Amino acid sequence: MGIGLAEFLTNKLAAEHPQVIPISVFIAILCLCLVIGHLLEENRWVNESITAILVGAVSGTVILLISKGKSSHILVFDEELFFIYLLPPIIFNAGFQVKKKKFFHNFLTIMSFGVIGVFISTVIISFGTWFLFPKLGFKGLSARDYLAIGTIFSSTDTVCTLQILHQDETPLLYSLVFGEGVVNDATSVVLFNAVQKIHFESLNGWTALRVFGNFLYLFSTSTLLGIAVGLVTSFVLKTLYFGRHSTTRELAIMVLMAYLSYLLAELFSLSGILTVFFCGVLMSHYASYNVTESSRITSRHVFAMMSFIAETFIFLYVGTDALDVTKWNTSSLSVGGTLGVSSVITALVLLGRAAFVFPLSILTNFMNRHTERNESITFKHQVIIWWAGLMRGAVSIALAFKQFTYSGVTLDPVNAAMVTNTTIVVLFTTLVFGFLTKPLVNYLLPHDASHNTRNRGKRTEPGSPKEDATLPLLSFDESASTNFNRAKDSISLLMEQPVYTIHRYWRKFDDTYMRPIFGGPRRENHPEC
Amino acid sequence: MGIGLAEFLTNKLAAEHPQVIPISVFIAILCLCLVIGHLLEENRWVNESITAILVGAVSGTVILLISKGKSSHILVFDEELFFIYLLPPIIFNAGFQVKKKKFFHNFLTIMSFGVIGVFISTVIISFGTWFLFPKLGFKGLSARDYLAIGTIFSSTDTVCTLQILHQDETPLLYSLVFGEGVVNDATSVVLFNAVQKIHFESLNGWTALRVFGNFLYLFSTSTLLGIAVGLVTSFVLKTLYFGRHSTTRELAIMVLMAYLSYLLAELFSLSGILTVFFCGVLMSHYASYNVTESSRITSRHVFAMMSFIAETFIFLYVGTDALDVTKWNTSSLSVGGTLGVSSVITALVLLGRAAFVFPLSILTNFMNRHTERNESITFKHQVIIWWAGLMRGAVSIALAFKQFTYSGVTLDPVNAAMVTNTTIVVLFTTLVFGFLTKPLVNYLLPHDASHNTRNRGKRTEPGSPKEDATLPLLSFDESASTNFNRAKDSISLLMEQPVYTIHRYWRKFDDTYMRPIFGGPRRENHPEC
Repeated sequence: MGIGLAEFLTNKLAAEHPQVIPISVFIAILCLCLVIGHLLEENRWVNESITAILVGAVSGTVILLISKGKSSHILVFDEELFFIYLLPPIIFNAGFQVKKKKFFHNFLTIMSFGVIGVFISTVIISFGTWFLFPKLGFKGLSARDYLAIGTIFSSTDTVCTLQILHQDETPLLYSLVFGEGVVNDATSVVLFNAVQKIHFESLNGWTALRVFGNFLYLFSTSTLLGIAVGLVTSFVLKTLYFGRHSTTRELAIMVLMAYLSYLLAELFSLSGILTVFFCGVLMSHYASYNVTESSRITSRHVFAMMSFIAETFIFLYVGTDALDVTKWNTSSLSVGGTLGVSSVITALVLLGRAAFVFPLSILTNFMNRHTERNESITFKHQVIIWWAGLMRGAVSIALAFKQFTYSGVTLDPVNAAMVTNTTIVVLFTTLVFGFLTKPLVNYLLPHDASHNTRNRGKRTEPGSPKEDATLPLLSFDESASTNFNRAKDSISLLMEQPVYTIHRYWRKFDDTYMRPIFGGPRRENHPEC
Repeated sequence: MGIGLAEFLTNKLAAEHPQVIPISVFIAILCLCLVIGHLLEENRWVNESITAILVGAVSGTVILLISKGKSSHILVFDEELFFIYLLPPIIFNAGFQVKKKKFFHNFLTIMSFGVIGVFISTVIISFGTWFLFPKLGFKGLSARDYLAIGTIFSSTDTVCTLQILHQDETPLLYSLVFGEGVVNDATSVVLFNAVQKIHFESLNGWTALRVFGNFLYLFSTSTLLGIAVGLVTSFVLKTLYFGRHSTTRELAIMVLMAYLSYLLAELFSLSGILTVFFCGVLMSHYASYNVTESSRITSRHVFAMMSFIAETFIFLYVGTDALDVTKWNTSSLSVGGTLGVSSVITALVLLGRAAFVFPLSILTNFMNRHTERNESITFKHQVIIWWAGLMRGAVSIALAFKQFTYSGVTLDPVNAAMVTNTTIVVLFTTLVFGFLTKPLVNYLLPHDASHNTRNRGKRTEPGSPKEDATLPLLSFDESASTNFNRAKDSISLLMEQPVYTIHRYWRKFDDTYMRPIFGGPRRENHPEC
């Protein structure tokens, strides 16, 4: 009966509706995932990603049985689907919902984890695999492949940990993990693309520098594009005030412009991920104050929902893909060999991350030793940060498909082996490490974890900023000597607390020039206002 | 310079990003449309559809110039894009935002316009074209084509008129035009599909009856499926109360289930349009009360936004398609012939609509002559209803493409001629009749039109129902004779005011059984509560 229905569906209807069947099945499974995820919400071990992967694996098994071992896929993997439709909402939402104050206060630390960390991790994983793979009898990869593997396994998936940390109780930790997650995604994609551009035939001492230069160029131009689109959108929304006639237009403009920023970046071969992230930051900082109250609420929820659906979709896909028999059969490795290669990669992931989290944390603490405001990163926090980035997720899968397959299909045994190994590492880290995250956080931060299941859907920005804003600013209506002393103070402060001082000047600039043009509330407790 | 950039874009980047360029261009133009639509909001003559068509035509011209006369298209017409991605949000939103009380109060009138009207109009247009086309020298169409043409040009586009009518000032008129618009879309698509199933080789007296039977079957099963999905969603949302953990899940479930209802209907070869409409009605009646306040606001706005984007997208497409040189060159008709055929169709559209609006309105007034509550449809209202349905829109285009092209391409001169004629009729009716709608309504209803630019984005349901609910109901704790008299009253009331009585029983049933299970507020002024 089941087979009969399945055959009926695949034969009779597939001809009429080639796309309808897989989409319906996938959406039905997505709904199932949401329901199961909700029911397991209070469970200590399981999170959304794990649920989606497991549901995906079960669906894959069912499809494998129905299709009599031919295929486990509902949808064929499509790089474009991932990079053009699923990734942008996730990253945009990250930018839109990020607590900007915390993010920019810890900007240097986040950037060192997210950029320098990826470089260190890439180097360790690339060299490690290049050194160890041949010893396991796994040969046939090129230098470009090894570098690509380094970037593929340097991209982390922090969603899992963020579901457990509580932003109001450990704000520093939360903002570091969140911030690193975002910057890391962007960095690894940008670095992956930079690696693609290396000419290995004319390799010389300048190559590393050229990769780094290319990386810096991509990073800065992408950021600028995102900022530009965000500012244009804010300006248009403020000037025209669409809400006057229709709240629908406001929303539509926000959604469409956000998406356009990503597409433009891709069009000019920049990093859409960075562009759309900064577009999200700018939109939530300016544009969301130029729309009606209901649009503000709606936009926040819409972006969260789109991101949520896209994420679940990806993990579901990873789950079904794990059972792809074709790739398993094509792979050049035996079961033992696969296990060996996967173990090596997992070990290198652990090592590569430890190699930058602990040193960079110590460096950050050393840099901030004179600043009373910045709490230092305790060893327990360092362990959590290290752990938070061990999971490998959707970006790794997508990059692996990009590197080792052609539209999700590969006939080359070595490439197939790399794809199956990536799947195993992603599954293992997400399932095993993901499973252990809650207990680990509960053990290390017993108090903080107690609230972990509360208020998840209700993260809101806290009211008005509470810190004192007694900032030494240059003003021109006072005597020159006062100004000179002030300037000296400013400069010595700038040397000691660079981020804080920059941040204060930025706020002053923001209040005086940016907000009047692009929108946003006036700060009530600012002395100059 | 312009050409240089265009060539660079089409040659160099198209290879890397086949989908990115057209999508980016289309989204940029969509944003432009929104801005222009907003700026023209207070204009007396122009509305959203006209703006989108004109912007589309201008973009088509620009692309035609850039591609040196080769193509005017940004995107290739894709039936699946239209029927699977663009139509569902529009229709679901219609069901979700419809004022259910008004809709069901005027249920019989709406159904007679929306169902019987389409049948009458189809017959007139089919016979008219079958009789007149050969006289204009336009030959080569089959019997099936003529019937298809009848349904294609019986589908109306009431968006234009709804933008002008004001729901609080002329509630009857608004609900009739809106309700007919929705039912009409569904009926014409269902009838179109029923026509496809006719076996013309074994035509006999039963054929018409069989088409009608097929139609009834599709209509009822599709409605039931929509109701079922809506109830399941409401039940799940009420039972599990997702908002407890995450408002994002609630929203995601609503959006996904709505879409799933459409896909399921298409999968079982039913009418997705009807299914998704009733799913929307049920969701707004029950499900939207089972979610948190913020999700309620968000869902309303999200559905409105998706519908808005889809609609603008379609009109934009119609605009660019108007300049498709290939179809113009393939057409079997000369310029004069095309004008003649288009004029005949437009005349038949005017006639076909008059042939049911006026008789059915008179019939409705006659049926309601004893009911004090139902206002009668005045002659001025009849003229507005007639006019409101003269515009032909996206559904006509989509059905014409389905009937006369293969994935938007046709090499047959007769088919190409029909597609270009459909485009002309849609453009003409939308632009010319659309242009005249505001002046006409202002002329016929001078008071009502004065508010037409207010409160558009803020349509909200009025507070609590105000009408008296002194309804003769059977209750079992009174004497038999009282009950008998009550029953007699009920039955005589049922004979006189069928819709009102059914509606009252339904409300009783809804309050007692449905709302406790599927969610929704208790009516405060209901005597039995």
